[in-house]
Amino acid sequence: MRNPEVRVLTDEKNIVIIGCGASGGSASQFARKTNRKINIIIFEKDKYPQYSKCGLPYAISGEIPDFPDLIEFDEEWFEKQKIDLNLNSFVETIDKEKKIVYVKKDGQEIKKDYDKIIICTGATPFIPPIKNIKNDNKFASGVFVLRTIDDAEKIKENISKQKNVVIVGAGFIGLEMAESLYKKNMNVTIVESMQEILPAVFDLDIGSKIREKIEDKITILTNHLAEEIIVNNQKISHIQIKNKKTGSVGKIKADMLIIATGCRQNIQLAKNTGCLIGDTGGIVVNERCETSVKNIYAVGDCTEYKDYITKKPIDVGLGSIAVRQGICAGVNAAGGEYILEDGFLQTCTSKFFGIEVAAVGLNKSFLDDYDFETAKYKGSSLPEYFPGGKEINMKIIVNMKDKKFLSAQAFGDKAAQRINTIATAILSDMNIDRFLKLETAYAPPVAPTLDCETLICDIVKMKIDRKNKE
Amino acid sequence: MRNPEVRVLTDEKNIVIIGCGASGGSASQFARKTNRKINIIIFEKDKYPQYSKCGLPYAISGEIPDFPDLIEFDEEWFEKQKIDLNLNSFVETIDKEKKIVYVKKDGQEIKKDYDKIIICTGATPFIPPIKNIKNDNKFASGVFVLRTIDDAEKIKENISKQKNVVIVGAGFIGLEMAESLYKKNMNVTIVESMQEILPAVFDLDIGSKIREKIEDKITILTNHLAEEIIVNNQKISHIQIKNKKTGSVGKIKADMLIIATGCRQNIQLAKNTGCLIGDTGGIVVNERCETSVKNIYAVGDCTEYKDYITKKPIDVGLGSIAVRQGICAGVNAAGGEYILEDGFLQTCTSKFFGIEVAAVGLNKSFLDDYDFETAKYKGSSLPEYFPGGKEINMKIIVNMKDKKFLSAQAFGDKAAQRINTIATAILSDMNIDRFLKLETAYAPPVAPTLDCETLICDIVKMKIDRKNKE
Repeated sequence: MRNPEVRVLTDEKNIVIIGCGASGGSASQFARKTNRKINIIIFEKDKYPQYSKCGLPYAISGEIPDFPDLIEFDEEWFEKQKIDLNLNSFVETIDKEKKIVYVKKDGQEIKKDYDKIIICTGATPFIPPIKNIKNDNKFASGVFVLRTIDDAEKIKENISKQKNVVIVGAGFIGLEMAESLYKKNMNVTIVESMQEILPAVFDLDIGSKIREKIEDKITILTNHLAEEIIVNNQKISHIQIKNKKTGSVGKIKADMLIIATGCRQNIQLAKNTGCLIGDTGGIVVNERCETSVKNIYAVGDCTEYKDYITKKPIDVGLGSIAVRQGICAGVNAAGGEYILEDGFLQTCTSKFFGIEVAAVGLNKSFLDDYDFETAKYKGSSLPEYFPGGKEINMKIIVNMKDKKFLSAQAFGDKAAQRINTIATAILSDMNIDRFLKLETAYAPPVAPTLDCETLICDIVKMKIDRKNKE
Repeated sequence: MRNPEVRVLTDEKNIVIIGCGASGGSASQFARKTNRKINIIIFEKDKYPQYSKCGLPYAISGEIPDFPDLIEFDEEWFEKQKIDLNLNSFVETIDKEKKIVYVKKDGQEIKKDYDKIIICTGATPFIPPIKNIKNDNKFASGVFVLRTIDDAEKIKENISKQKNVVIVGAGFIGLEMAESLYKKNMNVTIVESMQEILPAVFDLDIGSKIREKIEDKITILTNHLAEEIIVNNQKISHIQIKNKKTGSVGKIKADMLIIATGCRQNIQLAKNTGCLIGDTGGIVVNERCETSVKNIYAVGDCTEYKDYITKKPIDVGLGSIAVRQGICAGVNAAGGEYILEDGFLQTCTSKFFGIEVAAVGLNKSFLDDYDFETAKYKGSSLPEYFPGGKEINMKIIVNMKDKKFLSAQAFGDKAAQRINTIATAILSDMNIDRFLKLETAYAPPVAPTLDCETLICDIVKMKIDRKNKE
């Protein structure tokens, strides 16, 4: 997205961006697009410029050959853009009165004046309370998280020697890692404390159907807690698990443990600077990505912002949102105007074991305040008479009051693009009566006359109309 | 689509549906869903119940094994629905005063009272003026059209004996047939009188790019007229063609000639009954699919209705529209209410030689009344760093005045679903500024952070904003 409305910025000189992940990198890029004259300085605590964190599981499996392939914008790119990229540079404090940031770069203390700051400090893996997981405040041997290239390198170095891996957490990253290690011929067990896999994104019934499709390849234990790492000869030997329902305890052979139980926002710097922190634990930002402290913006995984539908705060944890926030803050900090007034749709997708999954909106567990109707549909990507149709599964949740979409969840053929279509309907506040007027593209080798997005709305409309008549 | 708002129909008894194609079949189905008590009588002049005309090329190539596989609703289905399906039944006249239709069924004259009629008489292939194309009002040996199962059977019977085929017309059907016969190892030449292939759907530049991708498999002669069939020993031997630009004349070896130059609406019955016929040659219908004659509806390829964007009349020639009109007329004739107030988006797709193509809205040649800006984008379905990305090409045309989409054209990876997303934006009157707020689903093995639909809007926005500033 380029060329936002530019207003010449005259009295601001230095935009300091703290963190060079997807959000920070995008912020710098769009600040530069908005204003060619301003100084843009990035301080990134790690040694890599902007790279794809979401690509890490595929660099571990080897689908992406080398970790540096994940770098989306290299140092040369930043140089060309006249963006002053400082790696290995940790911002320790912000003096908001004097408008100075204090940085430790390669062991040296430096300071920099700022006019605007964009905080993009990201998030850190959450570590559940598992006995023996740490020694002297470091992970025990054989225990890994996946957030950075360094994390991923450590995992990759270890997998050739290992056979059994336990992954705690059946979210996208847990499942992507499961596939990655399955491809490396490891025995994979996922331990998930919730009732079903992908609990943050999908309803139980959809999660269950997805699970059924992958259980022949890996072991999935839902409703289970990982309680303790059992060590033998200073090496991880088993993971002790507990069934949350029955209370029964067991152990799983493990040479390796990967923690994939989500992240917590890195907010210490923002908090110390006086930025308001919200209920989800993220930095509170407004529609311009401004924090509560003047001249300080925050974007990406360290923030919280409102959900498009419920308008309640959600922690930002998707790369796609981070990039859009980065664009917003970059443009605004550089003197342009970019407003994210409506909150986030949270369109998301993943693919593992050959199954594409996707969703938009919050799942049922977040929708207690609504009177809604649901519909499910399982069909083929092609007309019945045409060979080679692929399975597509969808569920939608529709508000009884105004017949607008609250959530859509899908897996199977072109799930992500189908969800994009419904995301467009949500973004336009279209109800299902209107959506049913959509002429979807039809041709026998491509799609049936009435595609699954249409048919599922037809089902839910029938249910709602019937209820309304009662 | 089921359960439209039902109003009990008390004083109407017989709905007569003339024609059992996609529109007529859908009309009967939705009339029945709307009203369980009414009599529904179909008269279909051919010997098959509702089947997929769009599937014919694939039944010729053998991808769909047998022609009867194309039947979507068989006689048993109609019987179960208590729909009186009469095949081999040609409606000769409608007496609108006495409300009687006169039908020739299996050589017998019968008549039927009606309360409502739905005319679904479809269309007939247009035959360009090619010398020797007919003998005694019948096609010369070796000359074929493709509209019905009978047509397709004739083609299929002939291909095993033939080597060289000339197809006149490079629309969807021409290209689908070209692929079908290429798969049967025939030498295929397409002769198209217009400047580029797919002239009704795509702009020249997009048509040209699609042509480049298939020219290694078949010969395509654009700007050429097929003028004469040269006969040798009562068999087709060559096709004489003329270059429209240079006037030069040549001949192409041909054992078979297929005419795929579009269709003309079958309106004789409607015209004789006094129904208004429009400028495109189709039966004029309103938002309820009513003709100008009381109690007579018309739907499908025999009709014309307005384009969603330009509001100008277009001839209905897409199965997806025919089905939606059928739903509309079926519901309304049976006492429900179903309104198609806005005209048709004309979302369409096809796939040939492995290339999926799709479009929504009218192409540039229909948009003379608009001040518009265009953008083109060629990218990958996956992030750059992820292996296996597939090419996707897109073009959009955007109204300068309100930044709304006028047209979108695509080919390549998931073209149809991408076009559905933009069709949803058009249906909601969303402009590109709003569309740029769409969070498309992102994950490295599925889609890039900013998908091509977003990136192309970014490009056109930049161009429009720049122009507006000048």
